[in-house]
Amino acid sequence: MKLKAAVVGLGYWGPNLARNLAGSGDFSLAGLCDLDVARLERVGAQYPAAERFTDLNALLARVRPDLVCIATPVASHHALAAKALQAGAHVFVEKPMTITGAQSRELLSLAASHGRHVFVDHTFLFTGAVQELKKQVSGGAIGELLYVDSVRINLGLFQPDVDVVWDLAPHDLSILHHVMGQVPTGVRTLGSCHSPSGLADVAYLHLVYDKAITAHLHLSWLSPVKVRRMIFAGTKQSIIYDDLEAAEKVKIYDHGVDFDVKDLEERRRVLVSYRKGDMRAPNIAATEALTVELQNVAATVRGQASARASGADGAAVVRVLEAAQRSLAQGGALVAVEGA
Amino acid sequence: MKLKAAVVGLGYWGPNLARNLAGSGDFSLAGLCDLDVARLERVGAQYPAAERFTDLNALLARVRPDLVCIATPVASHHALAAKALQAGAHVFVEKPMTITGAQSRELLSLAASHGRHVFVDHTFLFTGAVQELKKQVSGGAIGELLYVDSVRINLGLFQPDVDVVWDLAPHDLSILHHVMGQVPTGVRTLGSCHSPSGLADVAYLHLVYDKAITAHLHLSWLSPVKVRRMIFAGTKQSIIYDDLEAAEKVKIYDHGVDFDVKDLEERRRVLVSYRKGDMRAPNIAATEALTVELQNVAATVRGQASARASGADGAAVVRVLEAAQRSLAQGGALVAVEGA
Amino acid sequence: MKLKAAVVGLGYWGPNLARNLAGSGDFSLAGLCDLDVARLERVGAQYPAAERFTDLNALLARVRPDLVCIATPVASHHALAAKALQAGAHVFVEKPMTITGAQSRELLSLAASHGRHVFVDHTFLFTGAVQELKKQVSGGAIGELLYVDSVRINLGLFQPDVDVVWDLAPHDLSILHHVMGQVPTGVRTLGSCHSPSGLADVAYLHLVYDKAITAHLHLSWLSPVKVRRMIFAGTKQSIIYDDLEAAEKVKIYDHGVDFDVKDLEERRRVLVSYRKGDMRAPNIAATEALTVELQNVAATVRGQASARASGADGAAVVRVLEAAQRSLAQGGALVAVEGA
Amino acid sequence: MKLKAAVVGLGYWGPNLARNLAGSGDFSLAGLCDLDVARLERVGAQYPAAERFTDLNALLARVRPDLVCIATPVASHHALAAKALQAGAHVFVEKPMTITGAQSRELLSLAASHGRHVFVDHTFLFTGAVQELKKQVSGGAIGELLYVDSVRINLGLFQPDVDVVWDLAPHDLSILHHVMGQVPTGVRTLGSCHSPSGLADVAYLHLVYDKAITAHLHLSWLSPVKVRRMIFAGTKQSIIYDDLEAAEKVKIYDHGVDFDVKDLEERRRVLVSYRKGDMRAPNIAATEALTVELQNVAATVRGQASARASGADGAAVVRVLEAAQRSLAQGGALVAVEGA
Repeated sequence: MKLKAAVVGLGYWGPNLARNLAGSGDFSLAGLCDLDVARLERVGAQYPAAERFTDLNALLARVRPDLVCIATPVASHHALAAKALQAGAHVFVEKPMTITGAQSRELLSLAASHGRHVFVDHTFLFTGAVQELKKQVSGGAIGELLYVDSVRINLGLFQPDVDVVWDLAPHDLSILHHVMGQVPTGVRTLGSCHSPSGLADVAYLHLVYDKAITAHLHLSWLSPVKVRRMIFAGTKQSIIYDDLEAAEKVKIYDHGVDFDVKDLEERRRVLVSYRKGDMRAPNIAATEALTVELQNVAATVRGQASARASGADGAAVVRVLEAAQRSLAQGGALVAVEGA
Repeated sequence: MKLKAAVVGLGYWGPNLARNLAGSGDFSLAGLCDLDVARLERVGAQYPAAERFTDLNALLARVRPDLVCIATPVASHHALAAKALQAGAHVFVEKPMTITGAQSRELLSLAASHGRHVFVDHTFLFTGAVQELKKQVSGGAIGELLYVDSVRINLGLFQPDVDVVWDLAPHDLSILHHVMGQVPTGVRTLGSCHSPSGLADVAYLHLVYDKAITAHLHLSWLSPVKVRRMIFAGTKQSIIYDDLEAAEKVKIYDHGVDFDVKDLEERRRVLVSYRKGDMRAPNIAATEALTVELQNVAATVRGQASARASGADGAAVVRVLEAAQRSLAQGGALVAVEGA
Repeated sequence: MKLKAAVVGLGYWGPNLARNLAGSGDFSLAGLCDLDVARLERVGAQYPAAERFTDLNALLARVRPDLVCIATPVASHHALAAKALQAGAHVFVEKPMTITGAQSRELLSLAASHGRHVFVDHTFLFTGAVQELKKQVSGGAIGELLYVDSVRINLGLFQPDVDVVWDLAPHDLSILHHVMGQVPTGVRTLGSCHSPSGLADVAYLHLVYDKAITAHLHLSWLSPVKVRRMIFAGTKQSIIYDDLEAAEKVKIYDHGVDFDVKDLEERRRVLVSYRKGDMRAPNIAATEALTVELQNVAATVRGQASARASGADGAAVVRVLEAAQRSLAQGGALVAVEGA
Repeated sequence: MKLKAAVVGLGYWGPNLARNLAGSGDFSLAGLCDLDVARLERVGAQYPAAERFTDLNALLARVRPDLVCIATPVASHHALAAKALQAGAHVFVEKPMTITGAQSRELLSLAASHGRHVFVDHTFLFTGAVQELKKQVSGGAIGELLYVDSVRINLGLFQPDVDVVWDLAPHDLSILHHVMGQVPTGVRTLGSCHSPSGLADVAYLHLVYDKAITAHLHLSWLSPVKVRRMIFAGTKQSIIYDDLEAAEKVKIYDHGVDFDVKDLEERRRVLVSYRKGDMRAPNIAATEALTVELQNVAATVRGQASARASGADGAAVVRVLEAAQRSLAQGGALVAVEGA
């Protein structure tokens, strides 16, 4: 039997969710909710089977959905998700999950007490490219991971309410957590604002891990070209993941770096040898990520799978964002990630 | 009449200098010097007109060169250049100029007291691409410069005696000084070392200027692919300079960012509008940079031009490197650039 | 008032037409037709306002559409379009228009006698890139057009009923006609078939024009990579149109070729000089082509515009395809294009 | 003991040969010859050990070289090579070997009767990329070779004495012969001339082989961009060789095409299935091709190897060029390759 789903917030991303839910074999699109009536009518016209609401309480009471998808501005996530959980629904929240770590924690405990799931829409985790990355990195093919560098830059769009860190870093952070299997313990953020808004439009994040891994993010709304490019360098192999490549998003370089310490007394006398090998670009499945994601959501709700992008994952991302924000305000000081 | 030139140090770069001097209309290659006799003979065989020496003093006394080119390991630059200046020669020193700012200062004052020139081999300043960059940026076409990001990464080569900052940053720093017409006042460096050598192989530099310009360098010996890419974003136009592009090294984007503050009380309410325009890749002259550089050296010695890469320029680069090194040792603290 | 539209054929392309018509301000989607009932139901479920039919006659009688869009296999275009025209509807036919020039002629004369329009879905003509091409070429900026080369290759998909020429060449031919304002007078085709189907999977077309223009198409289903790349070389400028480039689909090179004949007696003594200039990539509008196309269809039906991809244009493409097919069968003989 | 080598013709390519011979462990550069005394002096100054001549006879009599390298205009190759062979020297001739097949045959028979070798400078055969290609294609990894397409285009340079076919096709033809192990039996050429010189500046060659392989060359001096790109498509794998790629010149696609004929009566009913697999770019050695080539020449002269680019190979290329020229003159007729 299909699960009943509702979408709250029909701005940029909500209609995508509605389209995928309506076309899914797992869900029926049973309800739509938006404060803007015109928008509600326009989107709703395409889904006559879904009831329309301007108030979430009414929707919850009437539709009794199994899943509520929340695609509203981030500041409202906490209140709306809490209502849905309290009404007995599972929730699927846009990224970032909430605006504070405390709010995320509250939602997790609410979900636990009601026996419901919280999912966070870290869509990239459901792409073939990130799955390939995870397979290579966690499977050990790249050897010991030494260094991660990510560039996620483009021209605008300036957001009215969030800075470039909250806008772009959730993608990098969720990918890094998933691929590396660990959350940074600390972060430094150096950023700057070139508009009168006071919100950073360029930022550099240095992530600190327990192991000696260098990880660095470059985020910008001021680049004339769009770049989405991550480097994962290991002792045995290195990987470049370029999300804008049409056919070869993941390139695996069979390069190696060997350190040969000749004289333990004299640490400086190290022979470093490089091996340059073949490059391989594995064939990546082109399935739409959101479709795969909703299958994972349905299977998790049905107890047949575990969530790939759980509320706990979303909360970890928020905790790093919070620390990054604090570091930015302190001019780049090293700030510990709470609970990490 | 041709100027008499000598080359000291026939390792990697010295033979290039020898070849360019021998083929030049401005210079005759009159002397060669290297401690390694086999290397001296091998390179010298191609230039029968040049006398060969294993000792610089003997070369200076016998050849009486107008110009001594020093292409030895950086730690020896100061002593060799000082000898040459004291013997009345002009000197042309490989980058980086010296290993400390104090050494650079000494060479500058020695040169001044002997009425001789010091040139530093910042070859990139003599490429068509960097000249085009300078024209666009200092000519005002890009509007106000907001943000500079440079990526200079590759696989190795680990140097036995310098870290990745001293190896790669001199290129970026000399280009930035030349194009922007100013030296940073401070620098933060976050770097890491993945080998037992203790020398950083990945580093990120944040440069601080008087004006509110964000400038950031990413330097690495651990990237599987080679990247040489700088972004200069301005209020009117933005530029991408990719030195590895065969034909279109400099791309100028006619993009603009306008900030419209609606309400001064409410600084957050800023309308940001973007304009996406054409891209233009100006035709860049393909002359070999070293040839152009040696012409500038000859013309400067003859009093017909001023040095594009003077000792003062080289010294400024060394002062930033010194501050970067100190910041790296202090875990990323902001360190003021001496005398800036 | 909105025009009533119907879509016949709901395979690969029909649902796209339905979606665009339903979202258009010019049309209402009033009818859908397909022989396959399951497909009809599946697509129809999304458009409750459109009536569903398995027979075109019933649709025409009941819905009385202003426009019938035909997206069925090419062999059925003629019969279906003829019915629609006879019932007083305008028709919009997928490319290629028909399987013979004679069929195209019949449709044109039927349309004329009923005072109705035939449109052919040469979607590329409605892209910003092709409009930019036309502006540059027909506006004279490139000087005299000397040479056109197009590469349109990919891996598969083998079609069960058409060869690679009928599958891919309509795109190139419609673009060339539109941009150059003329139809070739003759064509040679050299092709080969590597499967047992007997249908060519690789083909090269040489198009002959009145003027001395070299035009050549490379079409293939056997290339491991997808390429969509056209060169237009003129005496003053040259253009590369690469449809797979994300941001810079059209690049205009300010290159020139000058011929200076020194001695008319001695024709061989020609000084050829090249000028290499800047490259410029104009900003191209990213509007969906099908949306622009349907606006043009509506405006033409309303007498406010003329058709950019008329039945006459579609018929010209079919005549060249017919000649190309004959040439292929004759092993590459030069075959005149009928009526050209 | 080193072989004595002489270079005749010090225009564009001769100085490269001189530099490589002088730096070789196999050869000593013993003589230089050019009609232009100024050029002879300028180049000769760098090689004081080589004697200088304006007349080949004098060089042969005095130097008695083991190898004479001929880098003069192609029309003079036959006469100069004949002299050298008659004087007992081996010869190394620039490509194309001669201007007619008859001249090539004469040189081969002269070489045979004097027991000397003729080498032709098809440098590309000595690159790591072409060696990788040969390994893949002749080793069977790509399955049955179905289709070869080569694009070799750029802006100019117009040659005063040869057309675009004689200028560019020798590269493609020598690579194809080497990689495929066979010479085409026939050729069609369609070309055009846009200058008053009467020499074709754009040409398309269709090569015919015994097996059902489609092979096609696109050659042009009128393209605004430089392209050097070959596709080799086989039943199991396909290869793209792009000589302008810095790091990944050879890309091997693990794609396959399977034809499954369901019903032999009904040849049209063919199921074609595609497999899309990984791409692999093998690490290619970056040794300078000319260095490898001269090692092969020396080893062949010493009886320790066989020539990779023999006179017979050079003569085969000339026979195809001759047929292509005849086809071009006949407007694209299929012309048999002599002796093939």
